[in-house]
Amino acid sequence: MSNQLFETIQQLNLAPLLNRGVFGIEKEGQRIDGQGHLSALAHPDILGDRQFHPYIGTDFAETQTEIVSDQFDNTIEVEQQLSALEQVLQASLPDCDYLWPLSMPPVLPADETQIPLAHFTKDVQDYREYLAKRYGRRLQMVSGIHYNFSLDSTLLARLYGEYYHDQYAQLSDFSDALYLQLAQNYQQYRFVLTYLFGASPIAEAGFLKAGQSAPDHPVRSLRASQLFGYTNHTAKIDFESVSAYVTSMQTAIQAGQLISEREFYGSVRLRSHSLASLATNGIDYLEFRGFDLNPYAITGMTQKQLDFLHLFFTYLLALPKQAGTLGERLQQGQAVNEQIALENPNQPSSQQTILVQIMADLHQFILDYHFEPRFLAAWDVMNQQVLDYQLTTSYQLAQAIQDHSLTAFGLKQAQSMKQALLAKPYQLQGYTDMELSTQMLMFDAFQKGLHVAVLDRADQFVELTYQKHHELVKNGNMTSLDQLVSLPLVDNKVVTKILLANHGMRVPAGAEYTDVETAVADYQVAFGQRALVVKPKSSNMGAGITTFVTRPTEADFKQAFQLAQAYDSRVLVEEYIAGSEYRFLVMNQKVQAVLERVPANVVADGRLTIEQLVAKKNDNPLRGEEHLTPLQNIRLGEREQLILKQQGYQVTDIPARGSQIFLLQNSNISNGGDSVDVTDEVDPSYFAIAEQAAKVLNLNIAGIDIIMPNLYQAYNPEHPEMAVVLEANYNPAMLIHLFPMMGKRRRVTKKVLELLFPEM
Amino acid sequence: MSNQLFETIQQLNLAPLLNRGVFGIEKEGQRIDGQGHLSALAHPDILGDRQFHPYIGTDFAETQTEIVSDQFDNTIEVEQQLSALEQVLQASLPDCDYLWPLSMPPVLPADETQIPLAHFTKDVQDYREYLAKRYGRRLQMVSGIHYNFSLDSTLLARLYGEYYHDQYAQLSDFSDALYLQLAQNYQQYRFVLTYLFGASPIAEAGFLKAGQSAPDHPVRSLRASQLFGYTNHTAKIDFESVSAYVTSMQTAIQAGQLISEREFYGSVRLRSHSLASLATNGIDYLEFRGFDLNPYAITGMTQKQLDFLHLFFTYLLALPKQAGTLGERLQQGQAVNEQIALENPNQPSSQQTILVQIMADLHQFILDYHFEPRFLAAWDVMNQQVLDYQLTTSYQLAQAIQDHSLTAFGLKQAQSMKQALLAKPYQLQGYTDMELSTQMLMFDAFQKGLHVAVLDRADQFVELTYQKHHELVKNGNMTSLDQLVSLPLVDNKVVTKILLANHGMRVPAGAEYTDVETAVADYQVAFGQRALVVKPKSSNMGAGITTFVTRPTEADFKQAFQLAQAYDSRVLVEEYIAGSEYRFLVMNQKVQAVLERVPANVVADGRLTIEQLVAKKNDNPLRGEEHLTPLQNIRLGEREQLILKQQGYQVTDIPARGSQIFLLQNSNISNGGDSVDVTDEVDPSYFAIAEQAAKVLNLNIAGIDIIMPNLYQAYNPEHPEMAVVLEANYNPAMLIHLFPMMGKRRRVTKKVLELLFPEM
Repeated sequence: MSNQLFETIQQLNLAPLLNRGVFGIEKEGQRIDGQGHLSALAHPDILGDRQFHPYIGTDFAETQTEIVSDQFDNTIEVEQQLSALEQVLQASLPDCDYLWPLSMPPVLPADETQIPLAHFTKDVQDYREYLAKRYGRRLQMVSGIHYNFSLDSTLLARLYGEYYHDQYAQLSDFSDALYLQLAQNYQQYRFVLTYLFGASPIAEAGFLKAGQSAPDHPVRSLRASQLFGYTNHTAKIDFESVSAYVTSMQTAIQAGQLISEREFYGSVRLRSHSLASLATNGIDYLEFRGFDLNPYAITGMTQKQLDFLHLFFTYLLALPKQAGTLGERLQQGQAVNEQIALENPNQPSSQQTILVQIMADLHQFILDYHFEPRFLAAWDVMNQQVLDYQLTTSYQLAQAIQDHSLTAFGLKQAQSMKQALLAKPYQLQGYTDMELSTQMLMFDAFQKGLHVAVLDRADQFVELTYQKHHELVKNGNMTSLDQLVSLPLVDNKVVTKILLANHGMRVPAGAEYTDVETAVADYQVAFGQRALVVKPKSSNMGAGITTFVTRPTEADFKQAFQLAQAYDSRVLVEEYIAGSEYRFLVMNQKVQAVLERVPANVVADGRLTIEQLVAKKNDNPLRGEEHLTPLQNIRLGEREQLILKQQGYQVTDIPARGSQIFLLQNSNISNGGDSVDVTDEVDPSYFAIAEQAAKVLNLNIAGIDIIMPNLYQAYNPEHPEMAVVLEANYNPAMLIHLFPMMGKRRRVTKKVLELLFPEM
Repeated sequence: MSNQLFETIQQLNLAPLLNRGVFGIEKEGQRIDGQGHLSALAHPDILGDRQFHPYIGTDFAETQTEIVSDQFDNTIEVEQQLSALEQVLQASLPDCDYLWPLSMPPVLPADETQIPLAHFTKDVQDYREYLAKRYGRRLQMVSGIHYNFSLDSTLLARLYGEYYHDQYAQLSDFSDALYLQLAQNYQQYRFVLTYLFGASPIAEAGFLKAGQSAPDHPVRSLRASQLFGYTNHTAKIDFESVSAYVTSMQTAIQAGQLISEREFYGSVRLRSHSLASLATNGIDYLEFRGFDLNPYAITGMTQKQLDFLHLFFTYLLALPKQAGTLGERLQQGQAVNEQIALENPNQPSSQQTILVQIMADLHQFILDYHFEPRFLAAWDVMNQQVLDYQLTTSYQLAQAIQDHSLTAFGLKQAQSMKQALLAKPYQLQGYTDMELSTQMLMFDAFQKGLHVAVLDRADQFVELTYQKHHELVKNGNMTSLDQLVSLPLVDNKVVTKILLANHGMRVPAGAEYTDVETAVADYQVAFGQRALVVKPKSSNMGAGITTFVTRPTEADFKQAFQLAQAYDSRVLVEEYIAGSEYRFLVMNQKVQAVLERVPANVVADGRLTIEQLVAKKNDNPLRGEEHLTPLQNIRLGEREQLILKQQGYQVTDIPARGSQIFLLQNSNISNGGDSVDVTDEVDPSYFAIAEQAAKVLNLNIAGIDIIMPNLYQAYNPEHPEMAVVLEANYNPAMLIHLFPMMGKRRRVTKKVLELLFPEM
């Protein structure tokens, strides 16, 4: 199956570009309450100003949310962003609000004027009033998915440049021809999608206008039908050419059949940023509008549906020239579509033969053009639905109808979807491969209404935009708020200490050495009998560090020095500071959160073994492995067992009730340590120390590690040893404050956004 | 040899702390002209406001410069900073100005009122007038070195804390006792230093006052003598105790013998920041004032002299209690000193026996307390001078006297010192181990009058301070002027390109891959027949990069991809852009310099072989090895020979006259490439592109690499390929602009300082 276009694609070896394109999705949906009625609540305030929110707004009714994705060159990223937006929207709803998962609205108020129009500016409100009057409020409550598509620009450019430049005066003439062909064929063949995606078997009682009689059986898609759907009956829009399309649209508007092009409810629209631009610059993309919400998909459409549509649109371009005039073809397509839309999903389709034929054709098309495997997988799912009508969504929905209503089904589905989306609040759906703190920052950014672009996913590089204000964020809080030189500054522990000490702060005494002999001579002199730490200058994760609680022998010291030198030829010898370690998170010279970090431990209950206590503690859903959760599991490896042994324990022992058993010495949360928010506990006098340290180092966003013997006792400047500043971080972990093991959760990612966008 | 103090030091194992202390130097010197007369020119304007300059100012006369070092805990850093300051001072002098290297002034005007007082504020000027009147302008023209010294604070603290706290009420009482003992013993034994360091054998004609008759032979040190030196004859200052010192000073001031303590010209002063503070808080440090300039040392005193003084002061503390009253001891010391100062350096000293005895004693002291090797080396040099008077500076100077004058010697020495200091303008003396660009920035900072602190030498971390404004600089231009996030941004080539492209700039097309199969599929489609580069995402130095000038075979492409993956699992496949590469250095949104980079090459003269041409080109003193010079030598290694071979050459060939032979493909200056400043050549329309790139990336200080086919042709926005932005740098090399191979030198380090300190 091919035509001249696809022969050329084959010849030019361009088929791989068919896997790409430009994709964007808009998804509408109704908010309901716990009884399945329209929500009486306003659109959530926490989502900010819906007029400017780039992703989440309202459509016709106050209860009708609309999610709009960005454009991506593949559907996978579209689906990822939609998942995230869906999570953000649902997490922003009050407890008792849900999202109705079906295209046909839930049971509406008997008096349609009780359907609340969206709260909006005057001009938008006026348009809504106009629509309410013209179509009735009920019809406007129908929801669905719009799928925006354009072809890959390299594909178009190479086809035009290497073959079609003789046939078309300019590139846009060529692409207009392709898009027109696609739009025409789509109208002829959309019945395939109505069969596969149809998911509006009934209308709830009272939806239909007086005089309309509902079919006496469920259907595949009321919404996709001419009779009950959401269409313009008077305006006749001409798809013969772009100019015909524009002219017919203008005529319909002048005749008062449409108030503007946005009132054209056809199954596909030719799009540019305006009608005028369409006439002069040609088609930018096609907007396909025919799709029912899939109530089994959180985003209203599965990845396989998105892929299948992409494949199907491409296939429509590859069809040979169709017989008949355009009018005849569209009329025929419309008739078949109407038949499929209104047939009973509890039976095979009357169009089974042609559906099977088309699917077989599509299969060959996939093989001929070597589409990526995901397209074959999508085809396979759809093909099974063609072969077995009981696999269609419309059939399944028909089974779910109780008392001529889908209220029970819809409500249950809405509740379970919300529950699923809220189950892991430390994750952002669609981006779960990224660092958790970046996921949380993106969650907050989506919620606040910032534009979010992931510039480099593996590198945690995100661009946030509000109007014309762009900000880059790396790893959650490396931003424009801090200075370039702070990075090497804080990485250099010696320089950090010099600056802190120059400003009167207490830091561990010590010096830097490259030569073991000098270090030996010095440590004996400078530290006397005091405890020591020997560590490589530029190690972060605890590697190569030796702590001597009593003065080491020269041999032991040398060994420690050599160990450190395995990591960095420059070695620091510092006094060891005893006491609990606290992480102060400072932003904009104010402490945002204080966390106490306790090494991995269990507290015995006198009944369970250490092994069992660890397993029990690891049961906390916030604990997990490989940084996929905010807290990490306590392990029982060699290191932990050795430490237990030093305390006289084995993992099978049952320690005395109430005793706290430590499994590690270092307090890193990433090694299974406990995190306890003590922001409201710590004496406020210590805040000034952390804030001063951040200021001295010119850090806006800083993690300051301080050892304090007693967090409750007010700091006394005459005893600087009450707060010894260990080190600073320019990219402090936020997750530990967002989800501590104990104590209050501090949403510090929001503070980053506030600082980056003070104008919001 | 020991006393109770040193027995305690031995017992507490504190001897290593004797190698430290706190040290600072002040050095005066006269500016002269090319005839050896006092310079008629004012202090150089380029050194800024001398009232605020922390290092370089003027003393009594306009011609009398004064260099003041910071305080360091070792003399090595003092000497390093003094070398740097000396270079900065001398490089700031006009061509015809020099620094007279001797303590006794050059020939002075017959009419002493012709000696110009330093241009200063009214109150300072008044003080100078007073001194001129009281001592005569001539005497004030004598120059020398002041050596400020205090003991290591850990040494004092540990001695006091672990032993002396029973004997002294507080630490400062203990340290006062030590400093007093040192100051007393110094006055008793300074004759040793007068012998060793004496370097003022004569006064030039007309220097001595009417009535003074010069000795009829050269002497060791006129300046150190009571008779001809620079002393107060009436004020009697008491060194018995701190309070006696303060009281006697106050009495002398009240009696009009001194206008203030700063007029006290004794050989040592007890110092705190004020006389009042001295009385209440004790002695901070001792100021030793007795030292002649060493005319053979660029800094007026060699490292060995600095070390010897440190050793000698320590030794004075270790002396057993001296016999006799303090008065007797000082009188005796004064007498011996006078004798040595005024004896003929052409003969052995009358005090040879005692000098030998003291040196032997000092040797034992070094051994007893295990001083660092440099102290033994210093001792050795001084000991030889004691053993052989012909090795003393005073003897050598006596030999240099011509016609009762040292004018010829002094002028020659001044000129050769200046020449030596200016020979390598790309280096800063004392800091030649640091990166050249940091050396230049520090040069400019010293010259401008910023306080310069090297916080981490190996790490190129410098703190610059003007009044209370501190700025950190790493690697010459990583500063507070730039944003933290710019560092990972610019390190990420993909994100950099996304941002540049988003703002309409032309960048090499391409994509990032981790999977070779996808990359293979893509490159064949996306690049057609165009040239390609395959490179690891995060490599800087050219490693792992393969360029294909014609479309590669799949096998070759895969091999290149695997090579790149050896450096980074993420690989970029980009179009190859042909053309010359230019580095635009942008600061504060303005292009400061543009450099054309040409791969290592020679131009044949038709006579020399390639080998000889390379050797000749490498003769340029700016070329060298290991980044110790601004340009690097062209090598003739395997790589270069291979490239020659590909062009059909051997190193022994004599190519046709005028032909340019390239020895490498990449244009890195560090691989022997040529650098040509084209700032004034390149069409200014390209500036906007570099400036926009810097702005898009939010870089204040940026190196933007642009490929332009023709630098003379104005940029046409309709042909964006006229300027393809390759990449950006947040820490751009400045040296290549400071010292290009050809074209104008651009002092861009000064611009960094201007931007950091706009208030200056």
